[in-house]
Amino acid sequence: MIQRKIIPLDSLNLGLEDLREQRLTNAKGSQKQQLIVCASLVDKIPNLGGLARTSEIFAAQSLIVPDLSVTKMDIFQSISVGAADWIDIQEVKEEALLLWLLQKKTEGYWIVGLEQTSSSAPLHQVEIPTNVVKNNNKTILLLGKEKEGIPVQFLQAVDTCVEIPQFGMIRSLNVHVSGAITIWELTRRTRLLQQQQE
Amino acid sequence: MIQRKIIPLDSLNLGLEDLREQRLTNAKGSQKQQLIVCASLVDKIPNLGGLARTSEIFAAQSLIVPDLSVTKMDIFQSISVGAADWIDIQEVKEEALLLWLLQKKTEGYWIVGLEQTSSSAPLHQVEIPTNVVKNNNKTILLLGKEKEGIPVQFLQAVDTCVEIPQFGMIRSLNVHVSGAITIWELTRRTRLLQQQQE
Repeated sequence: MIQRKIIPLDSLNLGLEDLREQRLTNAKGSQKQQLIVCASLVDKIPNLGGLARTSEIFAAQSLIVPDLSVTKMDIFQSISVGAADWIDIQEVKEEALLLWLLQKKTEGYWIVGLEQTSSSAPLHQVEIPTNVVKNNNKTILLLGKEKEGIPVQFLQAVDTCVEIPQFGMIRSLNVHVSGAITIWELTRRTRLLQQQQE
Repeated sequence: MIQRKIIPLDSLNLGLEDLREQRLTNAKGSQKQQLIVCASLVDKIPNLGGLARTSEIFAAQSLIVPDLSVTKMDIFQSISVGAADWIDIQEVKEEALLLWLLQKKTEGYWIVGLEQTSSSAPLHQVEIPTNVVKNNNKTILLLGKEKEGIPVQFLQAVDTCVEIPQFGMIRSLNVHVSGAITIWELTRRTRLLQQQQE
């Protein structure tokens, strides 16, 4: 008989305060990936809130939003289910984005744009550079605008464009969902496959 | 220079009506997977609308909802961006779900429950039966309730439980997002890897 999983909090022999502290250390510290999810071009609050939740769950280092004040909004807080307490969220406005990307490139980040272009790699085939795998997924994942995708001027800062193979009549996935699938795939191929090989 | 992809509709030498017909045939017909996404236990309309969009894009055969009338609601239509025109949507209420699952099992479907249980396989390691791969992903993906997950009485009908490895402080992914990641992973490992090997 299959049983639902119950996490035995008591068996840890820790008080609630200790437990919270320990989990905070894990969440904020060593278990994080170096992955930064960049949503500077995303403007719908439910998508930003959803990305906060998903990025936190996959232990991304940071989420970049176009405006920090969105994190105070009720709809962001309800959809992110409190993720903002556990993931670093920073602001980079669209007008500052190009310089920020170029700066991150000099810091050794692999800049990935999620966009259908003439030279995009299908997500399941994209080659992840060895140093990205070694450096705990040291990647900037640049997401596009809800309607127009990534404006062409930002593509010059991107190392690789990837696209998710799609088979339907509807033109494209929601930006939070396509971001989530890409975060999963990058995490699977760096952290999870690496754990398996160790 | 990377360029955005433009689909040359004119070059197809088809009138708009022909084109619509051709795409409809593709969308409704041969390109579909045998995957059925079962959202009978999901009750938030934005999640159902999102699942319709995502399921259509990954060419699922059908989406199962708890109540067909939701597809007429404004919020469903806005979030699904018209996906209901291109994917078969059927109703199975919670009280009829167990019998429906058992019936699908006799039809040869692999029943996968997305749930954290004592015996769940991590998504990246779950073994997909050979006949599922051969039969174009002949799977029922059973999603849980937003808060409680899959009630225990349905787990008896499930062949395999899978869970998505999660690393954060937030307890779990949104049901649409976890469904989307699982649909991607099943599609990648059946349709996409198979295409590569052919």
